[in-house]
Amino acid sequence: MNFIQALNTIWEKNNSLVCVGLDPDLRKIPQHLQDAEYPLFEFNRAIIDKTADLVCAYKPQIAYYAGAGLERDLELTIEHIHTAHPGVPVILDAKRGDIGSTAEMYVMEAFERYKADAVTVNPYMGTDTLEPFLKRDDKGVVILCRTSNPGAIDFQDLDVGGQTLYQTVAHKAHTDWNRNGNVMLVVGATYPEELGQIRAMTGDMPFLVPGIGAQGGDVENAVRNGKDSRGTGMVINSSRGIIYASNGEDFADAARAATLSLRNEINTHR
Amino acid sequence: MNFIQALNTIWEKNNSLVCVGLDPDLRKIPQHLQDAEYPLFEFNRAIIDKTADLVCAYKPQIAYYAGAGLERDLELTIEHIHTAHPGVPVILDAKRGDIGSTAEMYVMEAFERYKADAVTVNPYMGTDTLEPFLKRDDKGVVILCRTSNPGAIDFQDLDVGGQTLYQTVAHKAHTDWNRNGNVMLVVGATYPEELGQIRAMTGDMPFLVPGIGAQGGDVENAVRNGKDSRGTGMVINSSRGIIYASNGEDFADAARAATLSLRNEINTHR
Repeated sequence: MNFIQALNTIWEKNNSLVCVGLDPDLRKIPQHLQDAEYPLFEFNRAIIDKTADLVCAYKPQIAYYAGAGLERDLELTIEHIHTAHPGVPVILDAKRGDIGSTAEMYVMEAFERYKADAVTVNPYMGTDTLEPFLKRDDKGVVILCRTSNPGAIDFQDLDVGGQTLYQTVAHKAHTDWNRNGNVMLVVGATYPEELGQIRAMTGDMPFLVPGIGAQGGDVENAVRNGKDSRGTGMVINSSRGIIYASNGEDFADAARAATLSLRNEINTHR
Repeated sequence: MNFIQALNTIWEKNNSLVCVGLDPDLRKIPQHLQDAEYPLFEFNRAIIDKTADLVCAYKPQIAYYAGAGLERDLELTIEHIHTAHPGVPVILDAKRGDIGSTAEMYVMEAFERYKADAVTVNPYMGTDTLEPFLKRDDKGVVILCRTSNPGAIDFQDLDVGGQTLYQTVAHKAHTDWNRNGNVMLVVGATYPEELGQIRAMTGDMPFLVPGIGAQGGDVENAVRNGKDSRGTGMVINSSRGIIYASNGEDFADAARAATLSLRNEINTHR
């Protein structure tokens, strides 16, 4: 079963488009976990075990582990998802992008070392830098298209001859890069009109959708514009709104409540 | 002394524009080092100690360490450069780029954890994603502009209204992003004409120039087109041509000979 098939299965099984972003900051996790041997892993594990029946994916952001020198916590987190909750895919958010020989090492990082099911990549350097990822037909390749941040307009919205740069990326993803049926696009919830445009260009290609919650994206508009022909096609990420729903010892229960609430809100609009 | 001042100093002191790319692959380093506790560090240290008087910088590519789970080797490598060869700057090649809160973690990764002097970043997501790096006026921010790989043409060369995307990046780097005097651009040696264009747009802004050697870039054309008004302004990277100059026990001596030869070839054309 490849990554997109796994997504299709879990969308249905858990009736959920919610992805929990596992971006734990050592300075923000509850006090009682900060002295654990693997504090970020302990924090993640508690949240994972309370939410795994409500999500379609987990998305750890590698910067939070690498910045703190806690790679082992990331390894343990992904291993725990695979063993305790098989069938829930893991998207490693790393936004890698480099020349071929280096890209091969990033492929190793994402898929051999961390055993992620998919990884986010940056298209700026062009097709040859994506190839080492694209050829992995067992894995998902999640390509930045129209991101959720204010600066997305600086380059992604530039007109490159009748269409924007992000539309050109979407077009290439749909027509050139998806020969193995393993491509997704990052499209921010903060720009629902662009979500609709990209949906119209890409059939049922799945989108990873950041930007709801702390970043201000509206769930209803995002879902209405981003869903595919079957009412799925979206992996809607929430990080801070879920993992920091409480900063006390009840953080995992609060994360479950926040995940359930988001799942239900999304499902109202599918 | 900030990063650009450090570069100016070492360009003069070592009379060199050569940067050695420390991209060691565990499968390619000499047999006798493969069982060391820190094999990539031992490999790097031998090369560093033989070349530090001939270079203007070292550029470890983080993917080679992260792919193998050998972050400690990278920490030790950079620490060794700082202690044994103070004044030789370290550019961490990581090509990071993400929203502000995540970018802050990547700043921690590059500058607090690894203690690099500069880091490479990807501009696709826009100005706000670069800000956490740009505000570090003590460090260098090396922004992808026109890269050395074949796929660079896919997006970087698109016309965005009278100029290419990479020219737009160069223009923003020169006019908006360099308020702290800490910006460099990545411009590949494989496209000497573009090097000349970008030099004409950016005054004496330093360039990190990959692409000579294994990637096929011509030294003479790169130097003639890329040098600044003082005959410096370039950090010309060679990785495989230097670190794998020999695969035997003489690898460090061979690396020195290759570095010296490249330095002299470059200096002929300055």
